[in-house]
Formats: sequence, C-alpha cells, structure tokens
Amino acid sequence: MLPPKRLSAADYAAGVLAGSRTVLGRAITLVESTLPADQALAEEVLQAVLPHTGHSLRVGITGVPGVGKSTFIEALGRYLVEHRGKKLAVLAVDPSSQRGGGSILGDKTRMPWLAAHPAAFIRPSPAGGSLGGVARATREALLLCEAAGHDVIFVETVGVGQSETTVHGMVDFFLLLLLAGAGDELQGLKRGIMEMADALCITKADEGNEPAARRARIDYQSALHLFPPPPSGQPQPVLLTSAVRGTGLAEVWAVVEAYATATQQSGYFQQRRQQQQLQWLHQSIAQALEARFYADAAVQARLPTVQQAVAAGRLTPFAAATELLALSGGARVTTTP
Amino acid sequence: MLPPKRLSAADYAAGVLAGSRTVLGRAITLVESTLPADQALAEEVLQAVLPHTGHSLRVGITGVPGVGKSTFIEALGRYLVEHRGKKLAVLAVDPSSQRGGGSILGDKTRMPWLAAHPAAFIRPSPAGGSLGGVARATREALLLCEAAGHDVIFVETVGVGQSETTVHGMVDFFLLLLLAGAGDELQGLKRGIMEMADALCITKADEGNEPAARRARIDYQSALHLFPPPPSGQPQPVLLTSAVRGTGLAEVWAVVEAYATATQQSGYFQQRRQQQQLQWLHQSIAQALEARFYADAAVQARLPTVQQAVAAGRLTPFAAATELLALSGGARVTTTP
Repeated sequence: MLPPKRLSAADYAAGVLAGSRTVLGRAITLVESTLPADQALAEEVLQAVLPHTGHSLRVGITGVPGVGKSTFIEALGRYLVEHRGKKLAVLAVDPSSQRGGGSILGDKTRMPWLAAHPAAFIRPSPAGGSLGGVARATREALLLCEAAGHDVIFVETVGVGQSETTVHGMVDFFLLLLLAGAGDELQGLKRGIMEMADALCITKADEGNEPAARRARIDYQSALHLFPPPPSGQPQPVLLTSAVRGTGLAEVWAVVEAYATATQQSGYFQQRRQQQQLQWLHQSIAQALEARFYADAAVQARLPTVQQAVAAGRLTPFAAATELLALSGGARVTTTP
Repeated sequence: MLPPKRLSAADYAAGVLAGSRTVLGRAITLVESTLPADQALAEEVLQAVLPHTGHSLRVGITGVPGVGKSTFIEALGRYLVEHRGKKLAVLAVDPSSQRGGGSILGDKTRMPWLAAHPAAFIRPSPAGGSLGGVARATREALLLCEAAGHDVIFVETVGVGQSETTVHGMVDFFLLLLLAGAGDELQGLKRGIMEMADALCITKADEGNEPAARRARIDYQSALHLFPPPPSGQPQPVLLTSAVRGTGLAEVWAVVEAYATATQQSGYFQQRRQQQQLQWLHQSIAQALEARFYADAAVQARLPTVQQAVAAGRLTPFAAATELLALSGGARVTTTP
C-alpha cells in the first residue's frame, strides 16, 4: 500500500467540508500531533474551516466506569441517527487513556452500531499527553467535526479528576450518568460535578432495578432543590433510561433540545460559548507561560529543594515563588493594587 | 502625636511573638502594603516568625449576606473565648470590600463583644486589590496571628464568586452557613460550594423558625448522601444554631475538634496543609507570570482586537494565544507530550 499523499491546508479544508471521513480522520490526527510543522498546518486548516463551525449541539457526557456510558452513548446515538436523522460525532477526553485503569477504551467495539454507521463518526481520546494537550486536540477535533457537517457532538469523559471541568468548558450541555442506589460509585465521582451538570440521568432503569431507579429520581430531584440553581436559569431534570430496552432516550434528547431552545432565546447559550472561547484563550496563554517557566534549567534544578521547604513550612510560598521567579530572570512577584 | 517609630524586621518579629496587638496590627499592615520595600521587609518578618506558626485551627466561614454571619462569628467566638479559653483571630477575604454591595463590613461594630475582648483580634479584609493580592495578605496575616499565639483563626468570606475557593485553600475546616427554607439565598450561592463544605450550619434556628430549621436539617442530611463524599473521609454534618439563644455553638465546635482529631490521626490534616502550601506556591508563580504578560505594552495594544475575534468565532483561541505570545517575545504555545 502506498503511504497517504501529503495534503495541503486547502486539501484538508476541502475534504473536511465535503464530509470526507478519511480526510476528517487525518485532520484530527494532524491537530493531535505535537510536531511544530503539523501544528502550524493544523492552525491553517482550522482557520480555513472556522466559518463553517459552531452550528452543532455539543453535549458532554460523564459518569464513573460501570455506569454504562458506552451502552448509553450507543443507544442515544442510534436514536439520533435512526429516528432524528442526525449526523453524530463522538469524541472523548481521557488523559489516562494510555494508562488503562478507569479509562475510556479506544476501540470502537464498545459502540458497534455507531461504529458501523456512515452517519456516525467515533474518535477515541487522543492518547497520552497532559490534560491541556488532550483538551486542545479535542476542542479542535470538535470544530473539524462541525465543519464536516455533524449536527450533534458528544464529548465523553470519565467522572473523575479534572477532565470534567475541561469537558464542561467545551460543551453546551453537560449530562451526568448515575446508577440507582449505588453508593459506591459516588466515591469515585469528583465533588462539585453534580452542580456542574445540566441534567442527571439514571441509567439501567430496567429489570429489577426500576423501583430503585424511580426512588433515586425522586431523591435527586428533592436534593437538587436544596442546592444553588444553575446559571442557565433552566431546570436541572433527573431522567431515567434503559439502554437495553431503549426507553427514556427520546426524553433525554427532548430535554437537551428544550434547553438549547430556551438558552438560545435567553442569550445564555451564545454567552456561554463566548466565555468558553475566551477562557480557552487565557488558559492557553497561562499554560504556555507556565510550561516555559518550569522548563527553565535553573528553575528545574532548584524546584525540588524549594518545594520541600515550602511543604515542610520552612519557607513561605510567596518567598519561594519570588526566589524561583528571580532564577528564571522572570516576573517580579508583586501584589498589584 | 508622634508618628510610630519605624520598626526593623527583628522588632516586628519580637513584638508579634510577644503577642503585642499593636505590633501584630502593624505587621499585618506591612504584609498588606503594595510597596516593594514594605514587601521585602514583610518577607523578612514572616521568615523570622515562620517556625512559630501552624499550631492553630484554621476555620473558614462563609454564607451569603443575610445569613447572620457576623452574629454567628460573634457568638461562636465568644463561646470559644469565654468557655474554652481560646485566643481567637478573625480575618476576612472580601475582594469587594472597597465597593460595598454584599461586602463584609470593615468596622468592628458588627462584633462588639469580640472587638472589646483582649483574647480576640479582629481584622477586616484588606481593602481593594485583586483576589490574588487580598488572598496573599490574608494568608500572611494568618501566619502572623498564629505566631502571636492565637489558637483559633476564623477566615470569613461572602458566599459568592471565587473568594470561597481561595478561603477553602487556606483553612483546615470549611463551614457553610445557611438559612432554613430561604430558597432565594441559594440564588446567590456559588455552585459547588456545598460540596466544598466540611459542615453545613443552619443559622437562626430560633423563635418561629425552629420547625423549618429541623426540616431543613433532615433534607440536607438526606441530600448530602446522594453526593460524592468528602475527601477527608469524615462525615459532613448539618448543624443548627441560634446565635440569639446561644444554642448549638458547643456542638459546632465539637464537630470542628472531632474533625481535626480524626484527620490528624489519618494524616489527611497534614496532607491538606502541605497541598495548600504547594498550591499557593504554584498560584503565586502563575499569577506573576500572567501579570507580567498582560502588562506588556504590545500585548495590551493587541488584546482587545484578538479577544473580539475569538469571542466572535473568527479566530481560534489557540491561534490567538500563539499570536499574543509571539508579541510578548514570550513562550511558544505547544502541546507538550
């Protein structure tokens, strides 16, 4: 087999906009690359397709391993493709994807129906790298999928660590999957994630599990009223689904669409997207500045000693910061008025 | 009146360690100063007293305006001083303190008993400045108060915005005050704050309000079981107090002490403090790097245009970051593997 022809930025953009799955896949590989030449080319491609992005509904889906995330996504995705005529892309953010252990598996066999359907495009999490790197690649993959004509983008993540905040920062609607009566799974959930969710969904509400699922729904509905309301001004519903039976999926999608309509009318939808863009800008800058600082040889040589002194309470963090910043020839630590 | 004599770092340290309220007050003014000479002197003072810090219990107290925070602090503080023989300092973090509107009032008249008692030291929030600046001053004031022999430090904040996360990052125990049945107050609370709290406390559980307070307690207790448990491994109790009647205060303090004992035994207490120190170090560095970057003349000239293009979706945040970083002669944005 011949190696794939090297494409220009214009080739990539044209292929993506024409909806070519092959070119879309290669363009995503390009934005995932850490080679400077690839990154420059990727930026050109993104800039070219940017006017054709932004029209999809971006939905974050999270939940701890065992909650049935793959099965849920397969079932909801199939409903959208078969019954609603949607073109769907499924992306993932999972910084642990190279390490196993609670990670989202990269293979497409966990969503066999979607993987085989031409209206669905599945891309596993970029492997390895920092959360910042994975997040950037996924945000840019999302834009490419929109340019390729996908109406709905799912961004999947595991319900632990910082990856939720990252995914929450790139989607319009954030859905948290839970199991009924499974106290143990809560141990694994990041605190604060409940209040980040635009809706909760109790999965596996079938077989002998149904009464427990209904009770859990009532409990969560009451509990959420005791917590601060979402900034969207929208209700935070608790839904029941059974991926096996295919029940509840239309209801989930009705909630997502009602949310989108209401927040588009109120202006919150557009405002949230703008804030996400600006946050991404400022986070990119902060990450670059910190990456340069911690890569400085003098800082690297001194950092372990200073960190130890700070952790042991022998040096104030502020004095330590001043010392390290002086080493890097860098910024003065000062309290700006 | 003669102006106060200028003190050396050794004078400050000796005065603070001897428990002089006057010198403690002046040392806090010094750490609040934004003058480089004062900051250098402040660092010397802090370094000198550092071995005498760390022995107090640091308690964060938050709640929206109207919840009765001042009255609660006055009542709990009085209990600690009168009945438990504690020496107490009350600090505050309120970046809005210069602007009024939901801010913590600076005057001591809202805690008249504590203000008049020699075993209590009250210091209002440093006025104005960024949250970062206010946070630094308060963290350093906390160390000075410990060196001056205070056994308990309250750090008070308003229940909105980012100041909670900041206070949560400098205390051992975080207490959230709530009103019974006051749905409106929840509107003002920051989302996620419930799950940050080590205990909830329903205030004003007196007069006709008692039945509602008891119901609210049961509701919150049930609700918290549906949320991920605290990383401390400790229960997250819901307490009832009446500052007017003086009830529930001993119970609140028993919870704080039981928490401290249990987490000191498990090692979580020490671990949390170490993490806080290291976070403070890395935040100080990040803030200094970003402050320098955004102060750059070329960046300032270009930023508004770039931000507008990003918010409007005409430029990717990553491309915008690359452009701004190039202007500052600064770090390359790159995805580190």
